Amino acid sequence: MTGLFISFEGVDGVGKTTQVERLRAYLEAHGRTVVVTREPGGTALGAAIRQMLLHGVNGSADIAPRAEALLFAADRAQHVAETIRPALERGEVVITDRYLDSSLAYQAGGRELTLKEIRDLSMWATNNLLPARTYLLDMDPAMSHNRLQHAEDRMESAGDDFQSRTRQAFLDLAAAEPDRFRVIDASQSIEQVWAAIEADIKTLLGSEDSKELA
Amino acid sequence: MTGLFISFEGVDGVGKTTQVERLRAYLEAHGRTVVVTREPGGTALGAAIRQMLLHGVNGSADIAPRAEALLFAADRAQHVAETIRPALERGEVVITDRYLDSSLAYQAGGRELTLKEIRDLSMWATNNLLPARTYLLDMDPAMSHNRLQHAEDRMESAGDDFQSRTRQAFLDLAAAEPDRFRVIDASQSIEQVWAAIEADIKTLLGSEDSKELA
Repeated sequence: MTGLFISFEGVDGVGKTTQVERLRAYLEAHGRTVVVTREPGGTALGAAIRQMLLHGVNGSADIAPRAEALLFAADRAQHVAETIRPALERGEVVITDRYLDSSLAYQAGGRELTLKEIRDLSMWATNNLLPARTYLLDMDPAMSHNRLQHAEDRMESAGDDFQSRTRQAFLDLAAAEPDRFRVIDASQSIEQVWAAIEADIKTLLGSEDSKELA
Repeated sequence: MTGLFISFEGVDGVGKTTQVERLRAYLEAHGRTVVVTREPGGTALGAAIRQMLLHGVNGSADIAPRAEALLFAADRAQHVAETIRPALERGEVVITDRYLDSSLAYQAGGRELTLKEIRDLSMWATNNLLPARTYLLDMDPAMSHNRLQHAEDRMESAGDDFQSRTRQAFLDLAAAEPDRFRVIDASQSIEQVWAAIEADIKTLLGSEDSKELA
């Protein structure tokens, strides 16, 4: 059994958590060991970094764009080294709620750094680890289910324009890597979204089995 | 008056703090406005990062080498954006106790990343800001004045071999950039060390004045 690395992406409130749990249950029912994790904050170090990023640091000025990008990359580096790579090396499935594409969409889409700079940083941080599959749950930000619950978060207070630019950045990333991405209309019902993921994961596991036989 | 950026480097306990204060007093007596700062931890964000780096995070595994390098770079990015560049733009002198060379000597000299990787990261973090002058206070680590006071720090518990490798890494960096570095024998008395710095800073300010006249 070889390890399998899957990420879920999309703006807040599109239902990633629900679908991650559906996928976990499905894979466990099919005999796989599954590690579910998240960014930012998938490790104890990452959780501390996440607190800084969301709420700032007492007495600090705003976090500078390059410092922010480096903190996200540090979280990711620790996440890969401590959690993701060891699980993949044990042959397990790793499902992460957000990964490198979130940095690309949120930081490069929304702030003043280039996509290439953010991508180079993340690829260095992870020593070039990309998911085999990325599910982008796509929805008009105005329709997202639970964004109002977190309205005080630093990232989410940046407004609708920011959310719309971020959504478009995710769609652009998906278009640039069609082999890795599957874009799923998240305005559908939970069951419909899951049906799309289930159909794809069957194909993905099927092709993985074929590779092992080959 | 143009801004002037000066860093002090060297292993712990060589007397950097004392010489930084001497230089500050000298420059202020000569009519300059001086900002004294430090890495890691020159900003509120940096201080929080420093706590993570020195003492780890509750419940966390060891900090992975790439995460550690990214955290140092995040501290430096914030330090430059929040403190150093604004002061230089106001025409002030900035003296920092440690800067990029410490990352190169401690991380690349002591751990598993290449010098080029660490340097590229720092140059990106700072948007290519290097000091006009770097004073390397050099001494056999076994002779350093106050290292035992901090024996519980994570970095310093790595032992004498680590300190000796780090010292050599600093010397190699100085040899590679002789225009920027001045290597000063820190086993001399405080007065002798200061005399060497004073002689150099006079030359540096003299050449700065010439440039302004030219």
